[in-house]
Amino acid sequence: MGKKKKIRTPFFETGVKNYIYGDAVLEYAQVVDKAAEKYDIDVLFISPYTDIRRIAKSTKNLIILAPYMDTLRPGRGIADVLPEAVKAAGAQGVVLNHCERPMTLNAIEKTIERANELDMLSFACADSISEAKAISQFHPDIINPEPTELIGSTEASDMSYVVETLRVIKDIFPDILVEQAAGITNGKQVYDFIMAGNDGAGSASGILLSEDPFAMVDEMIFNVKKAKKDLKN
Amino acid sequence: MGKKKKIRTPFFETGVKNYIYGDAVLEYAQVVDKAAEKYDIDVLFISPYTDIRRIAKSTKNLIILAPYMDTLRPGRGIADVLPEAVKAAGAQGVVLNHCERPMTLNAIEKTIERANELDMLSFACADSISEAKAISQFHPDIINPEPTELIGSTEASDMSYVVETLRVIKDIFPDILVEQAAGITNGKQVYDFIMAGNDGAGSASGILLSEDPFAMVDEMIFNVKKAKKDLKN
Amino acid sequence: MGKKKKIRTPFFETGVKNYIYGDAVLEYAQVVDKAAEKYDIDVLFISPYTDIRRIAKSTKNLIILAPYMDTLRPGRGIADVLPEAVKAAGAQGVVLNHCERPMTLNAIEKTIERANELDMLSFACADSISEAKAISQFHPDIINPEPTELIGSTEASDMSYVVETLRVIKDIFPDILVEQAAGITNGKQVYDFIMAGNDGAGSASGILLSEDPFAMVDEMIFNVKKAKKDLKN
Amino acid sequence: MGKKKKIRTPFFETGVKNYIYGDAVLEYAQVVDKAAEKYDIDVLFISPYTDIRRIAKSTKNLIILAPYMDTLRPGRGIADVLPEAVKAAGAQGVVLNHCERPMTLNAIEKTIERANELDMLSFACADSISEAKAISQFHPDIINPEPTELIGSTEASDMSYVVETLRVIKDIFPDILVEQAAGITNGKQVYDFIMAGNDGAGSASGILLSEDPFAMVDEMIFNVKKAKKDLKN
Repeated sequence: MGKKKKIRTPFFETGVKNYIYGDAVLEYAQVVDKAAEKYDIDVLFISPYTDIRRIAKSTKNLIILAPYMDTLRPGRGIADVLPEAVKAAGAQGVVLNHCERPMTLNAIEKTIERANELDMLSFACADSISEAKAISQFHPDIINPEPTELIGSTEASDMSYVVETLRVIKDIFPDILVEQAAGITNGKQVYDFIMAGNDGAGSASGILLSEDPFAMVDEMIFNVKKAKKDLKN
Repeated sequence: MGKKKKIRTPFFETGVKNYIYGDAVLEYAQVVDKAAEKYDIDVLFISPYTDIRRIAKSTKNLIILAPYMDTLRPGRGIADVLPEAVKAAGAQGVVLNHCERPMTLNAIEKTIERANELDMLSFACADSISEAKAISQFHPDIINPEPTELIGSTEASDMSYVVETLRVIKDIFPDILVEQAAGITNGKQVYDFIMAGNDGAGSASGILLSEDPFAMVDEMIFNVKKAKKDLKN
Repeated sequence: MGKKKKIRTPFFETGVKNYIYGDAVLEYAQVVDKAAEKYDIDVLFISPYTDIRRIAKSTKNLIILAPYMDTLRPGRGIADVLPEAVKAAGAQGVVLNHCERPMTLNAIEKTIERANELDMLSFACADSISEAKAISQFHPDIINPEPTELIGSTEASDMSYVVETLRVIKDIFPDILVEQAAGITNGKQVYDFIMAGNDGAGSASGILLSEDPFAMVDEMIFNVKKAKKDLKN
Repeated sequence: MGKKKKIRTPFFETGVKNYIYGDAVLEYAQVVDKAAEKYDIDVLFISPYTDIRRIAKSTKNLIILAPYMDTLRPGRGIADVLPEAVKAAGAQGVVLNHCERPMTLNAIEKTIERANELDMLSFACADSISEAKAISQFHPDIINPEPTELIGSTEASDMSYVVETLRVIKDIFPDILVEQAAGITNGKQVYDFIMAGNDGAGSASGILLSEDPFAMVDEMIFNVKKAKKDLKN
């Protein structure tokens, strides 16, 4: 089966949600792949099911995540997303409990178990500090806490929340990687979040709805690199 | 957008559910593709999301169906199956209301509308004669009625049910294609169902759980061809 | 078990959704009960689960419907709504497939079967003409078609839709009762819908959001009676 | 609004699931009520929605819990279970995340918030030690951990699991009450679990499937009382 992919920190994460589809997804993935290579930064890429295999074949530096998977085992079942199938297609991990695809507590636990069984990374989302603490108990590899409390708040209070989520998660399992992705729309935010101690930063809407998505993703990954250097010094 | 794929009758339908995954899916699809060419028969192939594009690229005679799709439009939404994405990957149609993925009445209607909008075939499943009549109202392209009443019944009573489902569906819209797939495990059944007036026959479990799946799928498609000839004479 | 309640037409239907709760529900039900008696009109009353028994005990002229029920049988299962339990509490029927509680095709069929088994009335909702035709196949006792096509349309085109839904349903099973409830906010509409051939009319939001709900429900039931008389002459 | 009901420990918990319905539920509740009075023990009683009000009216010593509730607020919505409605009917608390009604992480958090807002007790179920730790983060009033690990294990290993769940929950919030209910079928087990440090014990199937349910519930509550005395000495 091989081993679970080791992520070098700080990392970047992006995806396409359903903003684009077909060849545009591949084109975007290839641009991200080049920036990942250029700055020597690990990038997680959340891909629609249909595009996982092609992106895996056509890129070299991306850690591809499926946007969800079921926990069934090979056998019957139509339209279910079989963990073995997304892994065979090239996914090295899976997203869990995205606010647009909430999961039951039990399914979260079972999906992390299945991911571990297949040496796949588990990337869990949480909507509040309590949710982040709850989900930490299952020891996923990465947590993306996007506190709904943040929405509408000032930059300053944002950062105190960020620091708090970071603290409570690391307090439970220090090796869980923490990524911030809430409302990131420029490279400066990426830099600031990583300097504040986060293991990664991510953006999908912030890039794809920007004026020049290809330039924006380059800017963001550049800032991951910049923060990495500044943290070393 | 092009036009909706025209299916030549009698046709055959198969898929892999979750019995196999990865390269085994491609290998099976290629065997089916060859049999489709050899007997000059249209074959519908239900593919896991992750394998649609590769099968579309690597085969010539299959009409690929996604096992399900959502009805959202391009934009936000993670883990949803975007119709435009499955079409761009190579799917020419979509399965609806499979008993392992039941859908609400409203979602059935909306999914058929989305399929029509994208010139995709709609392949709807029904669990009883009443369900077959109900689902016919939305005018899908193909209906696969698998009456639970059939289970455990004798061959003779089976055929009377088959004839009844055929009649009630064609009575509502004569151009809906009717496929029988319940419990088909050999070529003789395929032949008999088509001789009884059905537009197609299908099998997934019956093939993949057989001793020699590649031989079995050839046998079944051969029987579609045989019935086609005998119907002409 | 007794027999399924026979509804005298034209009838009226109302309920409280979640606009009010507790004693206010009983108070409203008693006002409706009095109007039902005063005008000698059958009134269907959709009650929250918690209030079914008390309303059944405290009123004489209402035909109480549960807003939904599951199809499980007595045994395990927590939080499921057992058909036998809602019937024992006093419900004489059940609502199916309300647009705020959509059901799968299969659940619609099974729920109507369970209702028939317990001599409970089945009151099914449909969102379009195709849905009304589809749901008619299962032969529920009453259909409430609320075409989304209606929304925003003119009064004149409204009535042509109403007549069309009425025609397609009666065409499938003439004994299905058809009720109109979409956007009814005054007695005049109740009168017009019944004069147009509908078996019943209903309103919940239109009454509870009106200035004087008790006066409004009296006005509407008065208009059912008025239409009944005018239809006789 | 009043104050949230204070539970005296050790307590007992029971309910009827869907084993019985109608008058049999009331009869059972009254037997439980008498035993609660006889032994002066607080008893939580999980009631079907339809029976909450009648049991609240007809008993004096039971703390009634709804088996589930939604989080919507008064207004639209049919078939949803409005928190204000179950409270008005007499429920003093609500069950969350029962394994027969699993909830999303987000719904668990929101339901506990709604319960607190209405001074209702939150009684949360968990299927494993990790789930118990996860759900503890939301600070429900009571947790019922029923480790699936327990199934088929020996009595001895059972108790070590029980002690472990107790420890991890109290470690997060010492004031969360912990109840054991997994597979309890006699009074001795009730006694042992409470002597092991649990705040309560519960049984539904174990009582209702026993030969003499009325005698069994008396035996169990007697054992709560016995343990209470023995713990004092």
